[in-house]
Amino acid sequence: MVNQVHDLEGLTSSTYYQNHDPESLMLFLDAVAAFAEKELYPYFRAMDAVPARFSDGIIQTHEQIGKVIREGAAMGLLLTPIEEKDGGLQAPYTLHTAAHAILEAANNHVPGYLGLTLGAAELIQHFGNDSLREAFVNRMLSGEWCGTMCLTEPQAGSSLSDVLTTAYPAEDGSYRIKGQKIFISGGDHEHTSNIIHLVLARIDGAPAGTKGISLFVVPKYRNDGTDQWIRNDVSTAGDFQKLGQRGYCTTHLIFGEKEDCHGWLVGDPNRGLSHMFQMMNGARIAVGRGAASIALAAYQASLAYARERLQGRPIDTSGKKDVEMEQVPIIEHPDVRRMLYLQKALAEGSMCLVLQTAYYLDRMKMTDDPKERLKFHLLLELLTPLCKTFPSEKGIEAVNNGLQVLGGYGYCEDYILQQYYRDIRIFAIYEGTTGIQSIDLLGRKVPLQQGAVLQELMKEINHTIDACKTQELLATYAHELEIQLSKLLQTTEYLQHFAKENDYERYLADATIYMDLFGIIVVGWQWLKMALMAQNMMRQKSGNYSDAFYQSKIHTMQFYFKYEIARTDSLINILESGQELTLPGPDYF
Amino acid sequence: MVNQVHDLEGLTSSTYYQNHDPESLMLFLDAVAAFAEKELYPYFRAMDAVPARFSDGIIQTHEQIGKVIREGAAMGLLLTPIEEKDGGLQAPYTLHTAAHAILEAANNHVPGYLGLTLGAAELIQHFGNDSLREAFVNRMLSGEWCGTMCLTEPQAGSSLSDVLTTAYPAEDGSYRIKGQKIFISGGDHEHTSNIIHLVLARIDGAPAGTKGISLFVVPKYRNDGTDQWIRNDVSTAGDFQKLGQRGYCTTHLIFGEKEDCHGWLVGDPNRGLSHMFQMMNGARIAVGRGAASIALAAYQASLAYARERLQGRPIDTSGKKDVEMEQVPIIEHPDVRRMLYLQKALAEGSMCLVLQTAYYLDRMKMTDDPKERLKFHLLLELLTPLCKTFPSEKGIEAVNNGLQVLGGYGYCEDYILQQYYRDIRIFAIYEGTTGIQSIDLLGRKVPLQQGAVLQELMKEINHTIDACKTQELLATYAHELEIQLSKLLQTTEYLQHFAKENDYERYLADATIYMDLFGIIVVGWQWLKMALMAQNMMRQKSGNYSDAFYQSKIHTMQFYFKYEIARTDSLINILESGQELTLPGPDYF
Repeated sequence: MVNQVHDLEGLTSSTYYQNHDPESLMLFLDAVAAFAEKELYPYFRAMDAVPARFSDGIIQTHEQIGKVIREGAAMGLLLTPIEEKDGGLQAPYTLHTAAHAILEAANNHVPGYLGLTLGAAELIQHFGNDSLREAFVNRMLSGEWCGTMCLTEPQAGSSLSDVLTTAYPAEDGSYRIKGQKIFISGGDHEHTSNIIHLVLARIDGAPAGTKGISLFVVPKYRNDGTDQWIRNDVSTAGDFQKLGQRGYCTTHLIFGEKEDCHGWLVGDPNRGLSHMFQMMNGARIAVGRGAASIALAAYQASLAYARERLQGRPIDTSGKKDVEMEQVPIIEHPDVRRMLYLQKALAEGSMCLVLQTAYYLDRMKMTDDPKERLKFHLLLELLTPLCKTFPSEKGIEAVNNGLQVLGGYGYCEDYILQQYYRDIRIFAIYEGTTGIQSIDLLGRKVPLQQGAVLQELMKEINHTIDACKTQELLATYAHELEIQLSKLLQTTEYLQHFAKENDYERYLADATIYMDLFGIIVVGWQWLKMALMAQNMMRQKSGNYSDAFYQSKIHTMQFYFKYEIARTDSLINILESGQELTLPGPDYF
Repeated sequence: MVNQVHDLEGLTSSTYYQNHDPESLMLFLDAVAAFAEKELYPYFRAMDAVPARFSDGIIQTHEQIGKVIREGAAMGLLLTPIEEKDGGLQAPYTLHTAAHAILEAANNHVPGYLGLTLGAAELIQHFGNDSLREAFVNRMLSGEWCGTMCLTEPQAGSSLSDVLTTAYPAEDGSYRIKGQKIFISGGDHEHTSNIIHLVLARIDGAPAGTKGISLFVVPKYRNDGTDQWIRNDVSTAGDFQKLGQRGYCTTHLIFGEKEDCHGWLVGDPNRGLSHMFQMMNGARIAVGRGAASIALAAYQASLAYARERLQGRPIDTSGKKDVEMEQVPIIEHPDVRRMLYLQKALAEGSMCLVLQTAYYLDRMKMTDDPKERLKFHLLLELLTPLCKTFPSEKGIEAVNNGLQVLGGYGYCEDYILQQYYRDIRIFAIYEGTTGIQSIDLLGRKVPLQQGAVLQELMKEINHTIDACKTQELLATYAHELEIQLSKLLQTTEYLQHFAKENDYERYLADATIYMDLFGIIVVGWQWLKMALMAQNMMRQKSGNYSDAFYQSKIHTMQFYFKYEIARTDSLINILESGQELTLPGPDYF
């Protein structure tokens, strides 16, 4: 339903996306699905069973990864968001998002190799000079070379102010890089003949903090000046064995161990973090997308089990069970149904939010009107931390319920749920933990433009509310969401009162709870949108799906309101409790 | 503080426990702690890294397990709850619970071998005839032989009505057993010279359903009649490789493959389930205890990390951070503190609930007054499903937060949090899933004696409330808990209205949500009890701990009320929504 809820038609009727039409985009997604089914899903368990591993001085990974990189790139999976003038397909980001989500649902251990390559290439494309662009971008987008993002250092995890990697200017205009980076996804492997690292480092003598950080391109093999590509002084010190996503290597890289690591500045000196964060927004949307994809896949796996597994019987009106009766599939038990609907509500709601965010990115890209551009930019800024966090946090909960549906089998390695359970756990940590995202949301995004950004979002939500108010079945929920919005604004004001008194620690102390509240309400809007679209499609008999499909959207929206929107009262209780128990002070641990 | 909050002194002043005193019991716990530190904790990671595994026809487990069984039994760990007349120590169950919790916190992969042996021995002790008792009980309690509980079959997981294993009467008064059992914890290993299985099976021709199930003792080696112990026809078909608790073997057993599996009836024919459930209550308390222990251990591990790990800086009154300042330990960040207190609140609250349940078991055992006995029996019936579920479900949440405290390191195998995260996940499934426990709570326990059982619990809680009302700091919370109790009763009545209309499916549809509500309130009572005791100790200057220790209890009680008691409103919203969305009907998946 992506084409209806997120208006692919509207996107492709714009000048910017004029070379596409919904039909061809849907065909592309079909091709991606076929590719995922053939080249990704069958290797999902094997990549978990035999993890990527540092051994004999190299990172050993599953050989299928190389094939996916090559063939995926050949399909254009790295060209979708690139502009035509740069050799790309200039397709909607919404489409790009849906395509990569399909890959991730099939096997979340692989698409990161592609995604980070694209992100790194885009950084060079946007901020690099011509010679860097020429040297790297095409060979990355074609899948010949991979790319990585190197931010984290052992002493500086979330705190990028404390990056110590240093860049010393060399006479030829390049730099010599020295430092260590950890947790580098896809940081080393043998699938491509080069790996291009985008590295945050300080130019020697730069100011402390984030204002002294620059961005460098540091290839594993560098051009010796005669178009020979020789080994650069980038070495792999080891890897991290993880709870999940074990096919996706996570490495510890050392730059300049022999004082001969060549790097080239990308963009302006000391603006590295700002450059990186242009891409980081895309990376954060991608994290939310990955988590939503895993939750959807886990939902389908537990649903299939619940339909087949015979166990127990319904309770009759005497409160007993008739043991002479045949056992029923467990999907007939209310508690199992609740766990399935919960997964559906959280996973599909998450994916809808991710696509909504991608859609705003498209709207921003395709407009020439600066005012409209600003509007979508702000909406994007506001939704990005949420889009990263809601699918990751609720995805853990969804998969947890999926595992529970299988009972004892859910805990066994023979069944796939335990793998999803391990895999999805990283998403609440990747690219800024939930705590960091929540401080970003409440501390930076909500106050943007004196709160105008929140007002923009309200307007968007109110469009949906207004459209639902005229429909008998949906009016109740529209009304409920309206009340929720007003409560959210009240709570926001309550908290901002602390910021006004310069008590920022207290303002942000429960930011994670605020994130939860904010997310439940925004995803409630996404469900109302889906239900509205489903209702319209059924009425007009114009959809591509069965009535049962549309009814499932309406039913799940109702479920979401009963079980999830209901939770906001408690979160408001917490946020407005007036009690402060977590600020630094005496340790009561 | 177990001796104060759960009144070990009061217990040991009873006739039943007269041979014990608090000092000797605390010394026993010290000895258990030393044993756990030396013989269990050092092997915790190794048992995960090299799981128990079926290979060459036998189950291979870590050799340390044998040592723990022998030495643990020699310490009396299997004798604590056994009566003196039967050769036991007749010590408070509260003490027994605390002792095994210490073992489980150190290494949760091992204590199950001991716990199930004790449970199986107790079943034979209570329901077996003299010859069975003589043959088995002492050799089990001394750790010479292990025991297991065999309930689950491939076609009958939670639905014990559907057990198919059959017992055919033999001429010598014994039975020939035929059938398969799966998920048998400790089901086979080489550490003891015999393993005694307690097996649910149907005597050939018995009625369908749970009323046709009997209990049998089926040893791996049987007495051939001349006191030679020869191999019985019990074989291991395989094992289950699991997400966690990998040192604790989980086996698939086949009884009577060669038609020569000898078993002996324990207790009355067709009363097997009722016998088993006498022990199952103990097993369910033990599951809650295990989960609470893991959550406590994970809390300590994440707390230690948070105190040491330097990262980031506080936000000052201008809303900025001073990057020239040294980085601070992450325990200084409010969101990290929140995650630590949350773990403390859930884990210690869980353990307190487990000990409370054990305490009621003691009170029931030690009284001669039938009325009082009934009262504690009912309280025990009511609290058992909660005691199994709250620590298991909230333990997952607690450990999830513990892992998050470590950020990326939490996801890495080098750190222990990921192991706790995997280990604790089984507890919401063991011995009846959360769904099953919730139906037991709302469907069977709450209606017991026309609701009198809930009134008994209210009385207990009101004792604490009344004692707190006179204390300035605690009165607010006492008042809040009083309101919560009244809401709980209202919601219970609301739901019972469906039962009165014989709409049992609907009555129980949201039983899991009811369990959550019930648990949050009951553990709120436990926290209030702990705070009250802490307050009294500080005032009287009579405690064994520092004021900081007592203050931490009061602070965490406040935290629990702010963040957890606050959640009940939402659960009530759900339970009283008036909407029914999960009963069988059209599938909207």
